[in-house]
Amino acid sequence: MELVDPLLAGDRLSLARALSAVENEDETGRAVLNQLFAHTGRAHRIGVTGAPGTGKSSLVNQLARHFRQPPAGEAPHRVAIVAVDPSSPFTGGAILGDRIRMRDLAGDPGVFIRSMAARGSLGGLANATASVVQVFDAAGFELILIETVGAGQAEVDIARLAHTTLVVEAPGLGDDIQAIKAGILEIADILVINKADRPGVESTERALRGMLDLAHPMPHVFRHHGRLEMAPAPPTPPPNQAFWMPPILRTVATEGVGIPELAEAIAGHRTHLEKSGEWARRERSLLQTELESLLLETLFTRWRSTISEAQFQSVLDKLQDRRLSPHQAIQDLLNGRQP
Amino acid sequence: MELVDPLLAGDRLSLARALSAVENEDETGRAVLNQLFAHTGRAHRIGVTGAPGTGKSSLVNQLARHFRQPPAGEAPHRVAIVAVDPSSPFTGGAILGDRIRMRDLAGDPGVFIRSMAARGSLGGLANATASVVQVFDAAGFELILIETVGAGQAEVDIARLAHTTLVVEAPGLGDDIQAIKAGILEIADILVINKADRPGVESTERALRGMLDLAHPMPHVFRHHGRLEMAPAPPTPPPNQAFWMPPILRTVATEGVGIPELAEAIAGHRTHLEKSGEWARRERSLLQTELESLLLETLFTRWRSTISEAQFQSVLDKLQDRRLSPHQAIQDLLNGRQP
Repeated sequence: MELVDPLLAGDRLSLARALSAVENEDETGRAVLNQLFAHTGRAHRIGVTGAPGTGKSSLVNQLARHFRQPPAGEAPHRVAIVAVDPSSPFTGGAILGDRIRMRDLAGDPGVFIRSMAARGSLGGLANATASVVQVFDAAGFELILIETVGAGQAEVDIARLAHTTLVVEAPGLGDDIQAIKAGILEIADILVINKADRPGVESTERALRGMLDLAHPMPHVFRHHGRLEMAPAPPTPPPNQAFWMPPILRTVATEGVGIPELAEAIAGHRTHLEKSGEWARRERSLLQTELESLLLETLFTRWRSTISEAQFQSVLDKLQDRRLSPHQAIQDLLNGRQP
Repeated sequence: MELVDPLLAGDRLSLARALSAVENEDETGRAVLNQLFAHTGRAHRIGVTGAPGTGKSSLVNQLARHFRQPPAGEAPHRVAIVAVDPSSPFTGGAILGDRIRMRDLAGDPGVFIRSMAARGSLGGLANATASVVQVFDAAGFELILIETVGAGQAEVDIARLAHTTLVVEAPGLGDDIQAIKAGILEIADILVINKADRPGVESTERALRGMLDLAHPMPHVFRHHGRLEMAPAPPTPPPNQAFWMPPILRTVATEGVGIPELAEAIAGHRTHLEKSGEWARRERSLLQTELESLLLETLFTRWRSTISEAQFQSVLDKLQDRRLSPHQAIQDLLNGRQP
């Protein structure tokens, strides 16, 4: 494979070609993923999601800059940004503040930005994102920021790819949006209140804390003689405990305020994942999902090649006329009978 | 099957039980769907989607009332309402204004309301919704209103179930929400501006019309000697033409304003679908999707029963250690070799 070796050596053009190939899910793409697989499993995948207007793109931008120019004593990381917009499946306009981003990060060979054009279905988008992330991982990007807009099932499915998920809020976005976001809070590892210099930041933080307490019951509330009681201080968690209480951080991304603290919280979450064994568990569950979806695809392709298009259409005819039920059709198709 | 006969005879308790069974996707559910299939294919499935705050629930409510008490000379229809909330996958709180709805429509045996609890994945939710809709169809509900909240890929997937999709807007919801909704406009068969007594209705309509023109190029703009020209009047469309320009209607659902006109537009769209052959085409494509997803499930279950859990876990071990790539694992697993 002529793409793979230069890609592994750091060639950006080969990387861009490999990304296009895996996005297209063509033969080359499959071969590339196959050959790159042995080099994957090292990157820290960081999901960043939140409603429009929260300033996610600026935040991702600033995080990338911070990771490129860390405080003295820390090594700079190579950073990939994958910007996914599942809310606009038809127009394919997955731009997400690219122009601002370009101006800011352009010319740095340690940064690579990829916008994902939306797919016909959500499953397609999540698969393509997973493939793109694998390519970046193999290409040696230690940090991969996966940015999605919104707060629906789409974002949840994409968040499953991440080791660490940031949910971004901003003061004064209105009650409707708060209500939508109640579900996504439960996938947050770190909560960020961006635009924290705006009025209303206190009440946003209060609301988030209230929702968090519902989602993650505090460990220092316990039952004593059948009554709920509050411990005088949170008990020290046992070592390697899998419990993680999402911190709430305030940032003003456009001015860089709070970014070092956020980067520290991300590193802290990584340490937590590794110590608790959760890192390995998430990797395994992701690999299992990938294996199963590849299996399904292969099984279907193999089966489909055993019957003709005319046969398949004739089954559809009978379904449409209600002469067969889908279950009967399956039994007949799979047992080789002419339905 | 003890549920099916009373269900077909109109028994509500059997209907409720059948809905739970198909939602649970258990043995009973499969058997029910299998036996009901011959009775499906008659209902008009109407999708209603829009952002929170547009008043979708009241609109669905009022439409249901209208279909139950149509103008003199028209027969009342049996109406099912399926309320789906894909934005909150964890809390399972798919309520969508149920309390208001209950008060309004309670006690009418020609109306049945079902709220869909969210699933672990979007595919799961879309499948469960499809099954519930089939049960209502078989049970003789001529109109099935499928209500979803939001404007993401989730709503698009669920809208694929509908013959006619209403996208609901309201004045003054802010630019962010307008931006999210650009994609979903392209699946709209009818656009509704609800809360049309609010200020800003003119500019909302202008914005929608602008987006519509982009999504559906007007048929009366044509090329003449290489230049774009506007026809003096829209040419009469040829009979059976598949073109449908989504109308924009104004309603004030809480006061019943605009509801008869909306019901008329829905009936008009049905006529258009039938005359253009699009109705049959949509039915067939839905059946094909269903058949394929059932095939996948069956193929996977059959294959999975041929290998032991220990074998499967050992493959995962090798993947996690990068000793096998997913593609190699598949080849070995499917060809019966011990990987």
